[in-house]
Amino acid sequence: MRIVVINPNTSGPITDTITTAARSVADRLGDVSIIGVNPSFGVASVESHLEEAWATIGILQVIEADLLETSRADAFVIACFGDTGLDAAREAASVPVVGMSEAALYAAASLAHRFSIVTMPTRTIAQSERVVERTGLRHRCNVRAVGLPVASLEHDAASQLGLFLDEANKAIAEDGAEAIILGCAGLAELVEPMQESLGMPVIDGVAAGVTLAAGLVAQRLATSRASSYGTVNGAPSAIEFVQSQEVTR
Amino acid sequence: MRIVVINPNTSGPITDTITTAARSVADRLGDVSIIGVNPSFGVASVESHLEEAWATIGILQVIEADLLETSRADAFVIACFGDTGLDAAREAASVPVVGMSEAALYAAASLAHRFSIVTMPTRTIAQSERVVERTGLRHRCNVRAVGLPVASLEHDAASQLGLFLDEANKAIAEDGAEAIILGCAGLAELVEPMQESLGMPVIDGVAAGVTLAAGLVAQRLATSRASSYGTVNGAPSAIEFVQSQEVTR
Amino acid sequence: MRIVVINPNTSGPITDTITTAARSVADRLGDVSIIGVNPSFGVASVESHLEEAWATIGILQVIEADLLETSRADAFVIACFGDTGLDAAREAASVPVVGMSEAALYAAASLAHRFSIVTMPTRTIAQSERVVERTGLRHRCNVRAVGLPVASLEHDAASQLGLFLDEANKAIAEDGAEAIILGCAGLAELVEPMQESLGMPVIDGVAAGVTLAAGLVAQRLATSRASSYGTVNGAPSAIEFVQSQEVTR
Amino acid sequence: MRIVVINPNTSGPITDTITTAARSVADRLGDVSIIGVNPSFGVASVESHLEEAWATIGILQVIEADLLETSRADAFVIACFGDTGLDAAREAASVPVVGMSEAALYAAASLAHRFSIVTMPTRTIAQSERVVERTGLRHRCNVRAVGLPVASLEHDAASQLGLFLDEANKAIAEDGAEAIILGCAGLAELVEPMQESLGMPVIDGVAAGVTLAAGLVAQRLATSRASSYGTVNGAPSAIEFVQSQEVTR
Amino acid sequence: MRIVVINPNTSGPITDTITTAARSVADRLGDVSIIGVNPSFGVASVESHLEEAWATIGILQVIEADLLETSRADAFVIACFGDTGLDAAREAASVPVVGMSEAALYAAASLAHRFSIVTMPTRTIAQSERVVERTGLRHRCNVRAVGLPVASLEHDAASQLGLFLDEANKAIAEDGAEAIILGCAGLAELVEPMQESLGMPVIDGVAAGVTLAAGLVAQRLATSRASSYGTVNGAPSAIEFVQSQEVTR
Amino acid sequence: MRIVVINPNTSGPITDTITTAARSVADRLGDVSIIGVNPSFGVASVESHLEEAWATIGILQVIEADLLETSRADAFVIACFGDTGLDAAREAASVPVVGMSEAALYAAASLAHRFSIVTMPTRTIAQSERVVERTGLRHRCNVRAVGLPVASLEHDAASQLGLFLDEANKAIAEDGAEAIILGCAGLAELVEPMQESLGMPVIDGVAAGVTLAAGLVAQRLATSRASSYGTVNGAPSAIEFVQSQEVTR
Repeated sequence: MRIVVINPNTSGPITDTITTAARSVADRLGDVSIIGVNPSFGVASVESHLEEAWATIGILQVIEADLLETSRADAFVIACFGDTGLDAAREAASVPVVGMSEAALYAAASLAHRFSIVTMPTRTIAQSERVVERTGLRHRCNVRAVGLPVASLEHDAASQLGLFLDEANKAIAEDGAEAIILGCAGLAELVEPMQESLGMPVIDGVAAGVTLAAGLVAQRLATSRASSYGTVNGAPSAIEFVQSQEVTR
Repeated sequence: MRIVVINPNTSGPITDTITTAARSVADRLGDVSIIGVNPSFGVASVESHLEEAWATIGILQVIEADLLETSRADAFVIACFGDTGLDAAREAASVPVVGMSEAALYAAASLAHRFSIVTMPTRTIAQSERVVERTGLRHRCNVRAVGLPVASLEHDAASQLGLFLDEANKAIAEDGAEAIILGCAGLAELVEPMQESLGMPVIDGVAAGVTLAAGLVAQRLATSRASSYGTVNGAPSAIEFVQSQEVTR
Repeated sequence: MRIVVINPNTSGPITDTITTAARSVADRLGDVSIIGVNPSFGVASVESHLEEAWATIGILQVIEADLLETSRADAFVIACFGDTGLDAAREAASVPVVGMSEAALYAAASLAHRFSIVTMPTRTIAQSERVVERTGLRHRCNVRAVGLPVASLEHDAASQLGLFLDEANKAIAEDGAEAIILGCAGLAELVEPMQESLGMPVIDGVAAGVTLAAGLVAQRLATSRASSYGTVNGAPSAIEFVQSQEVTR
Repeated sequence: MRIVVINPNTSGPITDTITTAARSVADRLGDVSIIGVNPSFGVASVESHLEEAWATIGILQVIEADLLETSRADAFVIACFGDTGLDAAREAASVPVVGMSEAALYAAASLAHRFSIVTMPTRTIAQSERVVERTGLRHRCNVRAVGLPVASLEHDAASQLGLFLDEANKAIAEDGAEAIILGCAGLAELVEPMQESLGMPVIDGVAAGVTLAAGLVAQRLATSRASSYGTVNGAPSAIEFVQSQEVTR
Repeated sequence: MRIVVINPNTSGPITDTITTAARSVADRLGDVSIIGVNPSFGVASVESHLEEAWATIGILQVIEADLLETSRADAFVIACFGDTGLDAAREAASVPVVGMSEAALYAAASLAHRFSIVTMPTRTIAQSERVVERTGLRHRCNVRAVGLPVASLEHDAASQLGLFLDEANKAIAEDGAEAIILGCAGLAELVEPMQESLGMPVIDGVAAGVTLAAGLVAQRLATSRASSYGTVNGAPSAIEFVQSQEVTR
Repeated sequence: MRIVVINPNTSGPITDTITTAARSVADRLGDVSIIGVNPSFGVASVESHLEEAWATIGILQVIEADLLETSRADAFVIACFGDTGLDAAREAASVPVVGMSEAALYAAASLAHRFSIVTMPTRTIAQSERVVERTGLRHRCNVRAVGLPVASLEHDAASQLGLFLDEANKAIAEDGAEAIILGCAGLAELVEPMQESLGMPVIDGVAAGVTLAAGLVAQRLATSRASSYGTVNGAPSAIEFVQSQEVTR
């Protein structure tokens, strides 16, 4: 089984961190190989609706490119909190596409009555809440932010452990959280120390996304083409779009 | 006051219809001039999430282009049901941006206890419901579709009157609708005959959007930069993106 | 276009403040004239459900009186937070009736992801929440109060600036508010200093109500008579009711 | 224990029917005496928001009048579907005030997973839904109407049995209703035949209201004065208001 | 009228406290006799979902045993916050079954706009919220806990008055509570001192449950057998189950 | 990885069907072995709340018994629509416990905008809706029933294909369903023919449950012990309970 994990920003180091996190959980699910990719074009980090617009084109580029491979993906995971471009990706891909945020929410809801998301930049609380509304889990989930830019992850996630623990402890005291969802890709190395310190499940959406994707493939299920996600013809090609852009630069 | 009405698809005839509809209501609000535009690149109609991704780039192109004008827009109206690209546009523009769907919902909620949206392609019910969820009006609004492609509007909206009346009558009987929202830009010519036949308000979102935008300008209000819609730096330029694409074709 | 702004309490000074606020925004919407009125009978301020019952009779008196004018209203705005008597007024009037609270909520929802109402007496939080429920915006709006009687406005709204700023700052910190709605008519002079201090939109419902009303008139829309707001025959006359009361006093 | 049941319209025959219904259930709750009253002024039936405004003044008249009695009420029941004037009455009265609709909903929720209200005029569905929203039971309760004016009750409720059974059967088939709430005061005589025909609980709100009121009195509980329903001073007197009106007529 | 109040844990002293509380309110509702019982088997207190599973069997034992009595119950009240086993009990009993939590919520909603539950062990907040969701009152009710085991009630509820007052005062300040629901059976003696100190209604669910049950009996209503709570045949006998268990121990 | 799939009724043939279904999906997830079990005591099928009470004891018996095994379960799946006993099982087990209904809902929400559950006995719609409320997916999911007893599965699920297709087609036409969830364990053989006929995903909760459970194990996550699902001491032993029962029979 091949699962392509898409980091929708253009940061190679973050793609590497995400790929490592994805692989460590995939290794426990049999013959699941992980391919971590990021688009060649777009934004350095996805922290706003405008950046999401560009990142979505990047995601479409990756999905189109996969169609040209000899071994194609069996599923895609979008590794960006807020599940950027998820609906468009579901229409573009012929295999299941999973968002890391929704996957993390389903995992948390399987382990705890109440839980909180701790995301990074405060302005992305809106994006997290968008996913919470979609999944309907508002009655069990609150969203918080440590107030850091995503770029701070390129260097060293571990150094932000203190900030994340502080916010998680507030979630426990004020929201009654019984589990914590890390609200950003690239935070996998925080899972263990936070779990130890807090004494409760800490969920990395990349890992959750990989297992949800693998589960859908194992069930031989694909995105419904019946209505909302029906096949679309005649839209522009993201690959051509980006290539021409690269040529003229 | 200059209001730029953006048709996010590339169909000139639909832009013309929308502009006419926008002008007839603007004329009753003092010195409001309407500029109707569509992007030079994108999709012929916006009926899916994938097409919304491309249409959003087109909307950003229009907003960027406006910055280069000597007389800039005082507000933008996105004339596409589902309010495609609204959040990204709010970040990109320095003036208010209004979606035709949310504006239509607010107008309906000011005139009726319950109301229904009658949109065109069945698959876009999901997009309409996304706006209904955002505005929170699910307890008063149901979404229906006549099951027609948007392209059928290029020729003659009036010929679809019967289909719209049938669906509106079902909305009255089954949803208890006391007002009808036309779920697509370019349907203004249906307003009067439907209103006459149904004996209740029929709302065109383009007209509603223009009045909401003019109202925000009159109140001298602008999109909040405090958090979710804060200014974004360093994102790609939609104009350059599209130009390079046009060069290479 | 004639818009009658109804202050439902009997305080002339508050009517004057409201009328001034309404006019400053109306002036930017073409030929919109504002007539500010208050009933001759009722309560000095509307801060409870019981007072709302009396204020509603006053609103009906104003609407009935308008029918006797040679130049009638094209729309009414109810200038009282909580939108007192709005449903009854919609049935009584033959033209659109807008509540200042719902109009303020729609404006806020067009500019910000989350926002908070800062109202005056704590006991009226219930009335504000009633409007938040009607409009469905509970997932984006919290209600707060500075804990002042409405009567304190007759003297000098500006002197309460500090109290309003304190509560608005709490809304920003605790609710994630990105815009503030002033939860009382007669607070227009706080808009500018608060906006400057907070760096985000501050919305006066009177101004928002006038633009929403003007917009409905420009769209040539009227309250639906189809069901909930159908015409009512045979109800008592508010004018006669109040006149007889005045005679016997 | 004295429970005053207020019919907020001015129809004596309907007051009589209501009083009889209230008494038959009160007789089974010990020493509970029922006083059925209607205001001397107002509307012949309460079927619109405008009529509710007048009926509320009537309810206040009744509550004020009770204060002048030597044996005062221990609780009030508002016998009008939609719970007209309930909030104002709670502020005006020093004893508990119960709405027949909320009481019926609580009874239904104690007996069935899902249930439907069958009200009389279609336009009052909005009023019923207002109570359903207040109580939060929308996820378990649907509202329907037989489409009859309330006035048809003055003659003979029994003759409408067929219409009510038809609508109740639709509620069973389409809403999954397991209990039926009669959505109007004065329908008590339908309870038994409907119960027999449908094989499920049929709830008369007047009876439900009397038991809820008696229960609150037995618990020695009173309306909270802490905030929303705090005591109000200086409002007009409904008795004087109505008396002067009667004098001048 | 015979009302059997079921304490679903096996603590005799708590059953005694509950019975006393039930009787004091029953005495004001005419000829209502209270029989307080607890199962012979199960758990010492019900503070978790696992304990609820066992307590449910105990409740079924009590209901089965009642069928063997010459004077059977006219209604049952489950005296455990969280309304343990309520649905199963409704199917098992041929007379109405009321949960103390739902009854308390209905009483609170009849007296206040907003209210809070103050329960005992923090972990049972989930059980209280389950009832809040069922009744739909989440928009008006928050749940809090003093963080005490139920067992602490066997000795002396009064000694915990301070803790309950502290949490109730937080509910007033932070939730806007205008009434307090005591979130545990056996707390009746706190009602009066808390009411005096807080100046607002304090509701004991046992008392509320008895009045709701008596009210349903007075209305001659029974649980709907139409669907969800239809009669069940062939399930094991709780009495036999428990007897065999006692024999083998 | 060992996943114990619990059929909470006592029907061996249904356990066999469930086990086969679980294995076919487990085989695609690496080294996952499936142990299918049912309790030795309880009810032949779980179609009511009363039967759920007994089935919960059976589930606890299975979980306790697993503790005595040399190779213990890494996760449990409760294979009963409605997720009977899920909360109690989460407290009793030291490894993750997944409900087949919640797992099916998460899978459906990953593939379709709207979807419907088609369950078997009409009376169990309430149980399905309980899970829909928990997961928060009410805005995207409707529940329907074919109106068959669960027992009809022991013989031949395939013969009911027509009934299921009819109801699924109603879900497509009336609910806008884009995917169908089979609302009962033991229906796996309907998946393929329904999928072929309907042209959309058809989800078997047993398969979905196995993949969700395997995913949680792969993520090395366990039920949160922080509050709601904290460890419980001193509850009765289900094994002893059932054994004594068997002895005395």
